[in-house]
Amino acid sequence: MTNIPRTHPRYESLKIREKLSKGFREGLVHETGLIAHGRGEAFDYLIGEQTIPIADIAAKTAAALLLKSQHPIISVNGNVVALTVDECIDLANSIPAEIEVNLFHRDIKRVRKLVDTLIEHGAEKVYGLNADMRIPGLEHDRGWCEKEGIYSADTVLVPLEDGDRCEALKAMNKKVITIDLNPLSRTAQMADITIVDNVTRAIKNIEKWIYRLRDEDSAALDEIVGSWDNKNMLGEVIDFISNRLEGMYYGST
Amino acid sequence: MTNIPRTHPRYESLKIREKLSKGFREGLVHETGLIAHGRGEAFDYLIGEQTIPIADIAAKTAAALLLKSQHPIISVNGNVVALTVDECIDLANSIPAEIEVNLFHRDIKRVRKLVDTLIEHGAEKVYGLNADMRIPGLEHDRGWCEKEGIYSADTVLVPLEDGDRCEALKAMNKKVITIDLNPLSRTAQMADITIVDNVTRAIKNIEKWIYRLRDEDSAALDEIVGSWDNKNMLGEVIDFISNRLEGMYYGST
Repeated sequence: MTNIPRTHPRYESLKIREKLSKGFREGLVHETGLIAHGRGEAFDYLIGEQTIPIADIAAKTAAALLLKSQHPIISVNGNVVALTVDECIDLANSIPAEIEVNLFHRDIKRVRKLVDTLIEHGAEKVYGLNADMRIPGLEHDRGWCEKEGIYSADTVLVPLEDGDRCEALKAMNKKVITIDLNPLSRTAQMADITIVDNVTRAIKNIEKWIYRLRDEDSAALDEIVGSWDNKNMLGEVIDFISNRLEGMYYGST
Repeated sequence: MTNIPRTHPRYESLKIREKLSKGFREGLVHETGLIAHGRGEAFDYLIGEQTIPIADIAAKTAAALLLKSQHPIISVNGNVVALTVDECIDLANSIPAEIEVNLFHRDIKRVRKLVDTLIEHGAEKVYGLNADMRIPGLEHDRGWCEKEGIYSADTVLVPLEDGDRCEALKAMNKKVITIDLNPLSRTAQMADITIVDNVTRAIKNIEKWIYRLRDEDSAALDEIVGSWDNKNMLGEVIDFISNRLEGMYYGST
């Protein structure tokens, strides 16, 4: 797996997998993160391992919402850091937003490793180690967050998140942007803006839109965010996948 | 994850995942096996985590072919043993067939662990440790197999297999039955009979059909195998998934 030829039809996907395996061996990624990644791979395969047009519009809408927000936070877990540490830091700087480490399987050693990795890669401030508040409705260790971080954020970008956390953040009246390759997941359906795309493409894509939209006035940003219909978009993704599946089989794609 | 309530809508899927994680910690499962399992989970989710009617007919056809075979072998890897060790042994006894351990990432320590696990669970004879022949066309360690095992088999049941191995076995004029949740995979498309189902359901289901068909005469078995159209069946699975996706979204399923 270490010498994947560039000509391999699934070169990018295999390189991403290699990066995740590396993160796993370094203790950044939980073993269930490997399984979750596999699920994502399957859905990415179904959309053709590409940013589909509606996901680009979702990224644009996410960028508009992040620019409008007073206190946006990017919530990261092991998979996100392993796959997109630099992209997350660049995105955070461009908005600007802050970063908080939040894990499904909270483990202080792994939180520390992830925070250290982000700092080594140039992040200025990373929340997560000093979790002092709880997100209501999330049991056990999953509910911990920082008062100055996610707890007081108005908008949270939560890539690769679980449905419960998404729901709990919504219940706190926060705006939630998620990146989820499964258009039918609870997260995808609960979020205000769901980007159905691979996190390795989506984070960079949001940043691109941050730069394109940063000089727009507040009314223009409102217009973009206001015209977004997340439920309708998910239907378009489903149609895209159905058509593509049939096309792959019958050879018309 | 250790106390999943039975009422959880994805209880079975989560129990299966737990079994695989256990296999990983015991050294039976390779880390890439976790990712592969996640891919399977996504496709299983798309078919509704159930044996769809066409997969039941595929299992019936597989049983007929196994009963007709002179020297059928069940080829198992880490995931298959971790998830279905007892089911594989029961199926092998019912046909009867033999079992051979074959790994994508061959590692003699892991082969030994898998063979030992099968023996502990009651398998009488397991090939794989004394690999003395090569499957032409498979590079490096992946090509090793046993002369009395897969090398001389007329039919190989290869659940959760890679496309290359499936192709190489076909090139040796063997009949190949596979269990693969991705109807578009190269394995699914190369095999003589593809059972698009979760391995935990499919192995038991083939065994059910072995018992139902074992008293049929050769002509009846030929009739079942001869009427199977694998390519056409894969199209039916694609249609099933497309319709189900639309149904899940639009609420008609």
